[in-house]
Amino acid sequence: MNTIDTMSVNAIRVLSADAIQKAKSGHPGLPLGSAPAAYELWMNHMNHNPADPQWANRDRFILSGGHGSMLLYSLLHLFGYGDLSKEDLMNFRQLGSKTAGHPEYGHTVGVEATTGPLGAGMGMAVGMAAAEAHLAAIFNKENYPVVDHYTYVLGGDGCMMEGISSEAFSLAGTLGLSKLIVLYDSNRISIEGSTDIAFTENVQERMAAFGFQTLDVADGNNLEEIGKAIEEAKADTTRPSFITIHTQIGYGCPAKQGKASAHGEPLGEENIEAMKDFLGWPSKEPFYVPQEVYDHYAKAAEEKAEVEAAWNVMFAAYCQEYPEMEALWNQYYGGTDELAKVLMEDESFWANSEKAEATRNLSGKVINKLKDRMPNLIGGSADLAPSNKTHMNDEADFSKADYAGRNMHFGVRELAMTAIGNGMMLHGGLRTYVSTFFVFSDYTKPMARLSALMKLPLTFVFTHDSIGVGEDGPTHEPIEQLAMFRAMPNFHVFRPCDATETAAAWYSAVTSKTTPTALVLSRQNLAPMPGSCKDTLKGGYVIDDCEGTPDLILIASGSEVELSVKAKEILAAEGRKVRVVSMPCMDLFEEQSAEYKESVLPKAVRKRVAVEALSDFGWGKYVGLDGACVTMTGFGASGPAAQLFEHFGFTAEHVAEVARSL
Amino acid sequence: MNTIDTMSVNAIRVLSADAIQKAKSGHPGLPLGSAPAAYELWMNHMNHNPADPQWANRDRFILSGGHGSMLLYSLLHLFGYGDLSKEDLMNFRQLGSKTAGHPEYGHTVGVEATTGPLGAGMGMAVGMAAAEAHLAAIFNKENYPVVDHYTYVLGGDGCMMEGISSEAFSLAGTLGLSKLIVLYDSNRISIEGSTDIAFTENVQERMAAFGFQTLDVADGNNLEEIGKAIEEAKADTTRPSFITIHTQIGYGCPAKQGKASAHGEPLGEENIEAMKDFLGWPSKEPFYVPQEVYDHYAKAAEEKAEVEAAWNVMFAAYCQEYPEMEALWNQYYGGTDELAKVLMEDESFWANSEKAEATRNLSGKVINKLKDRMPNLIGGSADLAPSNKTHMNDEADFSKADYAGRNMHFGVRELAMTAIGNGMMLHGGLRTYVSTFFVFSDYTKPMARLSALMKLPLTFVFTHDSIGVGEDGPTHEPIEQLAMFRAMPNFHVFRPCDATETAAAWYSAVTSKTTPTALVLSRQNLAPMPGSCKDTLKGGYVIDDCEGTPDLILIASGSEVELSVKAKEILAAEGRKVRVVSMPCMDLFEEQSAEYKESVLPKAVRKRVAVEALSDFGWGKYVGLDGACVTMTGFGASGPAAQLFEHFGFTAEHVAEVARSL
Repeated sequence: MNTIDTMSVNAIRVLSADAIQKAKSGHPGLPLGSAPAAYELWMNHMNHNPADPQWANRDRFILSGGHGSMLLYSLLHLFGYGDLSKEDLMNFRQLGSKTAGHPEYGHTVGVEATTGPLGAGMGMAVGMAAAEAHLAAIFNKENYPVVDHYTYVLGGDGCMMEGISSEAFSLAGTLGLSKLIVLYDSNRISIEGSTDIAFTENVQERMAAFGFQTLDVADGNNLEEIGKAIEEAKADTTRPSFITIHTQIGYGCPAKQGKASAHGEPLGEENIEAMKDFLGWPSKEPFYVPQEVYDHYAKAAEEKAEVEAAWNVMFAAYCQEYPEMEALWNQYYGGTDELAKVLMEDESFWANSEKAEATRNLSGKVINKLKDRMPNLIGGSADLAPSNKTHMNDEADFSKADYAGRNMHFGVRELAMTAIGNGMMLHGGLRTYVSTFFVFSDYTKPMARLSALMKLPLTFVFTHDSIGVGEDGPTHEPIEQLAMFRAMPNFHVFRPCDATETAAAWYSAVTSKTTPTALVLSRQNLAPMPGSCKDTLKGGYVIDDCEGTPDLILIASGSEVELSVKAKEILAAEGRKVRVVSMPCMDLFEEQSAEYKESVLPKAVRKRVAVEALSDFGWGKYVGLDGACVTMTGFGASGPAAQLFEHFGFTAEHVAEVARSL
Repeated sequence: MNTIDTMSVNAIRVLSADAIQKAKSGHPGLPLGSAPAAYELWMNHMNHNPADPQWANRDRFILSGGHGSMLLYSLLHLFGYGDLSKEDLMNFRQLGSKTAGHPEYGHTVGVEATTGPLGAGMGMAVGMAAAEAHLAAIFNKENYPVVDHYTYVLGGDGCMMEGISSEAFSLAGTLGLSKLIVLYDSNRISIEGSTDIAFTENVQERMAAFGFQTLDVADGNNLEEIGKAIEEAKADTTRPSFITIHTQIGYGCPAKQGKASAHGEPLGEENIEAMKDFLGWPSKEPFYVPQEVYDHYAKAAEEKAEVEAAWNVMFAAYCQEYPEMEALWNQYYGGTDELAKVLMEDESFWANSEKAEATRNLSGKVINKLKDRMPNLIGGSADLAPSNKTHMNDEADFSKADYAGRNMHFGVRELAMTAIGNGMMLHGGLRTYVSTFFVFSDYTKPMARLSALMKLPLTFVFTHDSIGVGEDGPTHEPIEQLAMFRAMPNFHVFRPCDATETAAAWYSAVTSKTTPTALVLSRQNLAPMPGSCKDTLKGGYVIDDCEGTPDLILIASGSEVELSVKAKEILAAEGRKVRVVSMPCMDLFEEQSAEYKESVLPKAVRKRVAVEALSDFGWGKYVGLDGACVTMTGFGASGPAAQLFEHFGFTAEHVAEVARSL
């Protein structure tokens, strides 16, 4: 029974258990239970090349149950990825090690996505499969399937309980993403005990209802059965597939298997010894792996390298036969430096509008300026495109019938939309935007955090940015959302005041390399501001100044910039020297030099008023202990927008009054 | 064909269309399409008493598709609720009117829940049904079904696309909440067009997979068919029911019906006239309703009042036969003033711990002190109870087998958990808490916002509050979440430093009348602080002072209070006069008088350092332009917690160094 396959599976179990034991922290349950499925997949089905983890046409694998990170690290180590050495495994969960507690994209070679928040990987996998379908539709030519790979994702009961997976899978079924293959590690154990306490639904039936082919592997230790299911999944070319693999959590550890206690703590040294006995492991020495097992993995890695080599040959021929496609490929995959240069020099891109217009409209116009310059721009809305103004004119819908379409319809699924956007960016080759009302950015938050953590320059188009929403009332009026995003590391949130600032926000978004960007846009018309300019890219700048040192500074964003300029006029007529600072992006302003910041907001000027029709939270940094805020102090209300602004004190006279009181 | 029933249905359509037209804003599609289902339900099946909207045993109705608010307002008006007059309908969506854009709980009599964010109502309905099941198990006696009502919820395609509905329905199926009846208005139209673009799943099969009885009404205009389905739903006593009602969006308006354009804008005056012709409406006068229709609704209201009258008789007899149950009932439904008094006077409740202990553990002890004093306390975690320490000892699980249980198992479903918690609080009679890791509060955010907006004192137990999480790494380490909640109106977020502050946070949470409260608790042990006291209830207070006016103030929360006291000792040894302020709850501190705030943070003292192992965002309000922050400037890392604190600069020496630099 101890074939090389069994040994190779057990190597994953042993390394996982030993690393978690040494770290005194971690989650052995999933790696032990899922080792056979992961092994069978990586060894016999997945196209991947440990020597070139960035190969564009590799099959993708996401470990959605990110707590089982040692499963992934063990595989990466055994296959020889990125020199993930035995020492790295021994440093599991230690500060600065390559083997962080949960898999981190960009931190460890071979990790395709940061996971941990359950369900996230399911959404990202749908995004990767969508990206593959789109790029295949764009690039593939007869005899040249240059984009042709599967996306595999492995997750457990927790991933299936999270609503994001229902959202994402419903869309995947609608889109018929047949190269998405989900492996569901069904061990029926959650942290609080048997899943019977909270999760008795028929998962297979749910997935069938979403439009998936559903397959069942009764014995999660049976490699043949697992392999057969994966082949059946690949054979279905119209539907995504969902394979339920019945496993035992912590399999191999007699004292813990099948129990909730196997989930999230080290097995204990004695239990690990018993496990090694149970598995017939040849040594009790921690981290011991027989050379024959390493040899077996190494041989597979060599064979897999040949698959890429064959693809490279094909790709070279493709480039020769279709030089225009090679150029396009380079445009898709080649970064944004050239785009940045062209846009920066195109004055028409930066021109202000001639009349008052909603920044959501202006954003829609920018999207339609960008779409031809950025053929790899793709995106859409969570069923609000007509309101969000995100539609690319004359472009098709991305659908089962036409994966080349660039207008995506995510349905009313903000959270999955964001995960899908992340997955598309992770895939490579595309620049993606997602969109909804700003108040519903709340739903996107858990996945927007992953965008920031993974350093993915995903773009968020959030319209209806304040009480300017009007009649829809407080459920639809954002208040604290700007603060929520401003507080998040590595995230740029812009609230532009006019066409030029909106263009700048888009420029920043589409040329960003490692930071996601949100555009927060008005529903109502905003007047073009004479002073708005490319300094928007500095996050904050003087948009309207007085002569000499100001007595007072008004700081505002978006719709409140015009209001502040009007307030300034009232105050100036009274002989006060007032500066108006436009602060479209606090995050970028914070990144500027101390000198620049001082030039905009001289420390000596203590009379400062922040004006923004959202929460005051966070403005203290700029107004200090001597300033004031004209902001929202509670939720909004339902009524015509103009009345709401007046009702809540957003009038030039009230701003002037507050300024005078300082 | 124009029976009184048809006329009564069309009255809803006409009032809705006219109100939206007058407001020049609103969503006619749902009210027109769903009018028959809502009418049939309210007229012939629902127990409700327009004369007593607070009747404890009324059937609940939630309009999950809150944009269709005019459906609800029309029904409330026609049934004579709360004097919702024709003038109120004419003021639809006007500032200060009772008829806000979306239904607002607490604002309009008869509105059971604030809705608008799609899917939210589905989650809240599950919560109401859970509350009913629990209270029935506690209170009902043979022949005295004093708690015995249905919960109805009506929503559309958008509600079914949102992941929250899958989360909530999966749990409802597991729990067998048979008195939950979902009416699904299936019109196959979303804002971006046909649902075919994003939503081709088989919804009935999904719901069956969740454990629902599924029913189908082919013609949404057929009252008899609708009524039959509702009766079948009620007849199933083991499963919740899901009724798909096939409708046409905007039915009755020939120019718009079946089109996306019927969804979210007024129909137009000409189209309304055509609609009135199509419906055979007797007058074109806006808001005209024939007296016979009013009479028909009034008669029904009278009959429904008799149902409550009969219940009142039963309840009086119940109280006579079971005086101890009457006392218990009054304890459940009677508010928290008595509890507040008792807790305030119980010094053992406030006592500090004798040794260092994690605030999550201390919170668990408080829960177990409260559980006997608050028999109506019920709650649980999203599958993290052993980590969140939320288990009530010696109390049963809330399950299909035992609805009297008080320990709830929500599964890995943070968003639905929060909506369910809201629904339970909305139901009345219960005090509910929900729990997860603080970083996953991100998932709860959209529903936590509704808690705040609806003024529901739901309690959130968020543990693992900072980089103190340690090895699980950045996906599990909250950074910006404190700022996120502090920025939200009407929400109290506490980050206590020890046992006394934890007790105070719980005291504040369970005695709060209109504000939700979050407790943000440590994973790691924290030392008891000598100065901690009931002033925690003021949000911020001097926990360790110098003699005379301080030169410098250190402000901290949670685990960083002890650190700040240590830094103070270093600085004091150098001859500096340093005050340490504990700031467990910024929100409450802001609510204090200007005098109190000045006494804690004298404006003249400009050297201030905020110390908190999370984002600096929001601290500017207290440190001003001359202070500094020792906070996180990016995401965390994976490693042992003690190493992380040192790595990121959370040492007494570093705090002292920053303080000296001012």
